[in-house]
Amino acid sequence: MGRKTILVINPNSNEAVTRIVDESVAPLRFVDGPSIECITLREGPFGIESQVHAEQVVLPLARIAETRTDAAAFVIACYADPGIDAMRSVAAVPVFGSQESAILTGLARGDRLGVIAAGPGSIKRHRRYLRRLGLLDRIASERPVNMSVDEIATAGHSFERLVAVGRALIDDGADAIVLGCAGMARYRPSLEQTLGVPVIEPTQAAVAMALAAARV
Amino acid sequence: MGRKTILVINPNSNEAVTRIVDESVAPLRFVDGPSIECITLREGPFGIESQVHAEQVVLPLARIAETRTDAAAFVIACYADPGIDAMRSVAAVPVFGSQESAILTGLARGDRLGVIAAGPGSIKRHRRYLRRLGLLDRIASERPVNMSVDEIATAGHSFERLVAVGRALIDDGADAIVLGCAGMARYRPSLEQTLGVPVIEPTQAAVAMALAAARV
Amino acid sequence: MGRKTILVINPNSNEAVTRIVDESVAPLRFVDGPSIECITLREGPFGIESQVHAEQVVLPLARIAETRTDAAAFVIACYADPGIDAMRSVAAVPVFGSQESAILTGLARGDRLGVIAAGPGSIKRHRRYLRRLGLLDRIASERPVNMSVDEIATAGHSFERLVAVGRALIDDGADAIVLGCAGMARYRPSLEQTLGVPVIEPTQAAVAMALAAARV
Amino acid sequence: MGRKTILVINPNSNEAVTRIVDESVAPLRFVDGPSIECITLREGPFGIESQVHAEQVVLPLARIAETRTDAAAFVIACYADPGIDAMRSVAAVPVFGSQESAILTGLARGDRLGVIAAGPGSIKRHRRYLRRLGLLDRIASERPVNMSVDEIATAGHSFERLVAVGRALIDDGADAIVLGCAGMARYRPSLEQTLGVPVIEPTQAAVAMALAAARV
Amino acid sequence: MGRKTILVINPNSNEAVTRIVDESVAPLRFVDGPSIECITLREGPFGIESQVHAEQVVLPLARIAETRTDAAAFVIACYADPGIDAMRSVAAVPVFGSQESAILTGLARGDRLGVIAAGPGSIKRHRRYLRRLGLLDRIASERPVNMSVDEIATAGHSFERLVAVGRALIDDGADAIVLGCAGMARYRPSLEQTLGVPVIEPTQAAVAMALAAARV
Amino acid sequence: MGRKTILVINPNSNEAVTRIVDESVAPLRFVDGPSIECITLREGPFGIESQVHAEQVVLPLARIAETRTDAAAFVIACYADPGIDAMRSVAAVPVFGSQESAILTGLARGDRLGVIAAGPGSIKRHRRYLRRLGLLDRIASERPVNMSVDEIATAGHSFERLVAVGRALIDDGADAIVLGCAGMARYRPSLEQTLGVPVIEPTQAAVAMALAAARV
Repeated sequence: MGRKTILVINPNSNEAVTRIVDESVAPLRFVDGPSIECITLREGPFGIESQVHAEQVVLPLARIAETRTDAAAFVIACYADPGIDAMRSVAAVPVFGSQESAILTGLARGDRLGVIAAGPGSIKRHRRYLRRLGLLDRIASERPVNMSVDEIATAGHSFERLVAVGRALIDDGADAIVLGCAGMARYRPSLEQTLGVPVIEPTQAAVAMALAAARV
Repeated sequence: MGRKTILVINPNSNEAVTRIVDESVAPLRFVDGPSIECITLREGPFGIESQVHAEQVVLPLARIAETRTDAAAFVIACYADPGIDAMRSVAAVPVFGSQESAILTGLARGDRLGVIAAGPGSIKRHRRYLRRLGLLDRIASERPVNMSVDEIATAGHSFERLVAVGRALIDDGADAIVLGCAGMARYRPSLEQTLGVPVIEPTQAAVAMALAAARV
Repeated sequence: MGRKTILVINPNSNEAVTRIVDESVAPLRFVDGPSIECITLREGPFGIESQVHAEQVVLPLARIAETRTDAAAFVIACYADPGIDAMRSVAAVPVFGSQESAILTGLARGDRLGVIAAGPGSIKRHRRYLRRLGLLDRIASERPVNMSVDEIATAGHSFERLVAVGRALIDDGADAIVLGCAGMARYRPSLEQTLGVPVIEPTQAAVAMALAAARV
Repeated sequence: MGRKTILVINPNSNEAVTRIVDESVAPLRFVDGPSIECITLREGPFGIESQVHAEQVVLPLARIAETRTDAAAFVIACYADPGIDAMRSVAAVPVFGSQESAILTGLARGDRLGVIAAGPGSIKRHRRYLRRLGLLDRIASERPVNMSVDEIATAGHSFERLVAVGRALIDDGADAIVLGCAGMARYRPSLEQTLGVPVIEPTQAAVAMALAAARV
Repeated sequence: MGRKTILVINPNSNEAVTRIVDESVAPLRFVDGPSIECITLREGPFGIESQVHAEQVVLPLARIAETRTDAAAFVIACYADPGIDAMRSVAAVPVFGSQESAILTGLARGDRLGVIAAGPGSIKRHRRYLRRLGLLDRIASERPVNMSVDEIATAGHSFERLVAVGRALIDDGADAIVLGCAGMARYRPSLEQTLGVPVIEPTQAAVAMALAAARV
Repeated sequence: MGRKTILVINPNSNEAVTRIVDESVAPLRFVDGPSIECITLREGPFGIESQVHAEQVVLPLARIAETRTDAAAFVIACYADPGIDAMRSVAAVPVFGSQESAILTGLARGDRLGVIAAGPGSIKRHRRYLRRLGLLDRIASERPVNMSVDEIATAGHSFERLVAVGRALIDDGADAIVLGCAGMARYRPSLEQTLGVPVIEPTQAAVAMALAAARV
């Protein structure tokens, strides 16, 4: 019997995002641990920026959950957790969403969470999802950086903006911060150091849960 | 720089329990991962079976959190999560409770959780704690096996009883089960197979969260 | 300017269901009111009995919401409210779901609602949806008749079974009942009379809300 | 058998308000639909501006609910929903309150609602009522225009003020607006167009629910 | 300056009930404490057994709250708390309801409360009121003795029935009991002793709160 | 049989605080009422200003609850309610916490409460405690005066600062105020008069509940 595989799926077709995800989960790769394979959903849109984009990837994700029977766990590497219900309904193994895992992990690190969103549009969708999870009462607030995913990942002033939003969330009562977009992953350690509160990166949170599920 | 250490503390003075805990977290030890050290709280009572027992270990646990500055994370290996506030108030690193981690981990595996308690006395304390966490709405129910921790760990009919209570919890609406006592750890895999729903072992859940926190 | 149209979409491809829906909304057709057009989703599965079935109709429904620009309002004639987010994200006019409308309408008729589901499988999905709506606190309980949609619509003993489940819901504390499946529509008036509490038919509830939205 | 009657009762004795109500429900009158009769409660105070005013109309309203046995449904045309419990306890047919119907209808149009109140005094009463309904979690906020009912209905700057308060509510997170006072009815369509979100008029919402109840 | 007066109003016209109330609050009379005056509402029905009965006493109660300016606090000696909003809106001093005070007092004695109601009819009204208070989450359950107020106060088997219902409430998870009807007052001490959990008598709870408000 | 004793324990070792407490409960002493004895916990820290301080007094408080069998009720005269679970688990009589009693008492005086904290640090701890009590929904907000307990009790500008914070809480929606620190006790009457809303002093609230429990 070979090593178990955690399959991390970037549901958009942007390979650069897959590379960011791959890098961010590297600390969870162990010599004798499960393999963590990051793939790009070819059928996905270049970015998931609307409800329809999110819906477009549901059936392709479900198909992967059904056919990749070698996987010991699946991770959806997109904060919107597209296709989580469909994947769970067909997968024989656990499926972890990024937002769900990040919020649950964050709740072990702070009493109330602040979430940094890319833009204002996603905040309403996240809120509805958090209400569905029954976890809204422990969210202090969610605020946007008002930047595109690309900008966040590349612009020189991204860190400064993330710090400003993080501080506003702490003023709102947050004592731990969740990064609401994959493009923010690389700023996690420096943001945590600057803000002085735990900062959670969603794909890492989801892969960590998958790791445990794959081992025990 | 050597390997990081996750310090798992059994707050009662029963070494046999520490051995069970040590065994249950073994799958989360990796060649190049953090060391997972399980220790017994000498000052602890032989078993934590009352509110006063739980209070007795708070300051000793806080002292460990303050003095073991080599630890990258602490885990309280007792479902009651005694001393969690005190430890967090003095520790420079993350502190994970068993109950808190188990419930949060379980919420990624089922919509509503069922909890198997040792005896009826602890159910009221757990309920108050879950309300404090704001997570009561996703608990289907909690039911006791009505056995002592010792009995659970050693009696021939334990598994049968755990299965019966697990089935009752599923009838109550639970689609994932949390084991509410360290003595139940060894039954996790067979219980999961028999019941057909995810079964969460709290110390494993807490160590998995600690592992992620220690790595990323 | 001609009459406005309320477009009611049966998202499964079973024409018999569309006819039931068409019949059930007939009382809301007025000489000088909006036209109520009931259509069948050709691309839909014969019945929506799984999460994947529900996902399959999302994009086709969104396409209708985008292209049928003559409609003054859309109604999703399936209790699972498949595609409601996608339709709303692209439609220029209001979109009403059956479950959402039925629950909201029921809350004006009773303090706590009981829901009659076709089978047990859908109850967990409904619960998650009701939590997302923030309305779970006013649901007394949901119970299944344990019959297929076909059976419900045709079997001789359907009414008797619906009455039995309705009475159990009233014992659970419900003072109004919601029919959780389109096949039950024809039993609404007799069920209401027999049970002595208001009984809500979801497509009627949704079309009534659409009617108001189309007129004011 | 003649046409059914929906009896809409303005519980204050101001005939001008009854005329506004009558006008606002006109779009819900259909040639072959129920008759919608709007009456003034003679025993009512000229305006319902205090808790005692609200209590004064309870028994007169209950008497109407008991004696107007020709009605197929009753509507209380006052946002405070005075007498709703008393009317329901004696009426043989459904009774709809304006606030309750408006909030429930609004919840099918937006995830979180903003309410425009006449003055600050009523906001606390509304909040208590919304908590009783278990619907507070989906209210973004309620803000006053700080005008008397008369002023709202007649002053030249009313619309401008309503727009300003509506925008503040949207900033608070509301994606649909409820008008918290009958005097605002005539501004509904232009307010909806200017604000770009659904705007709900309570008496219309209540009559629409009554219409459905009277027909199905 | 003479002694302050706490005015306790029995809102029904049954003098026997006023005497029971007077007796039950006797332990809260102190030589140098406020006078506790118990009066009967002449305008009240002989018993408050319906919504309309409750509404009938609202304005008379408000009139007392307005005119008895010698009172330092008012207590409504009826578990339904009729007229509490109206009295508070006109009184210059604090107004305490029996149900509200009993539940709040009970929450300092048990984590979850059980309520013994006279009949099943009142349970729905109480539930709505408790939701309005935002306190439903800490109610384990409410169960009826299915006896009239008269029967409760006089029948030989009352105590036995109260014990049986009390035990059922404890099985439901209650760790303190609230008596939901004035007629049960005399059984409080023996019930508390037999059941082994705190038993709260509502008028006593309300008068105790009034006592504190009148003194500090 | 002599008079019953209510034992009020100041869990810090500052005798000046005990004197303030003793003075504040004086209005609840009656010639023929229970004796109210205020004692200082010798083992306590000079002030309870951290989580560890709070934990240090738990076992000493539990010992008092166990050994002072002459007491008819215990009151913890510290807003943090340290040791409340431990004391309740061993005491044969009721134990009242200051915060718990103050909030419950306040809820009979206002629909939503505002709390004045000494410093910002305690607000998060209070919030967690209020969530545990299931009462967060009725808290409008909590704001700090940003003064030490000593300063509050002695500084010339304390009253002015309390008034400013009280007004901010009223703007936040509070209609009753709870004083979140024993040092504020002497300002209660003047604060209530200046702010025009009820102001609750926690030790008084707890002793009042103890008084009732000791008498009935």
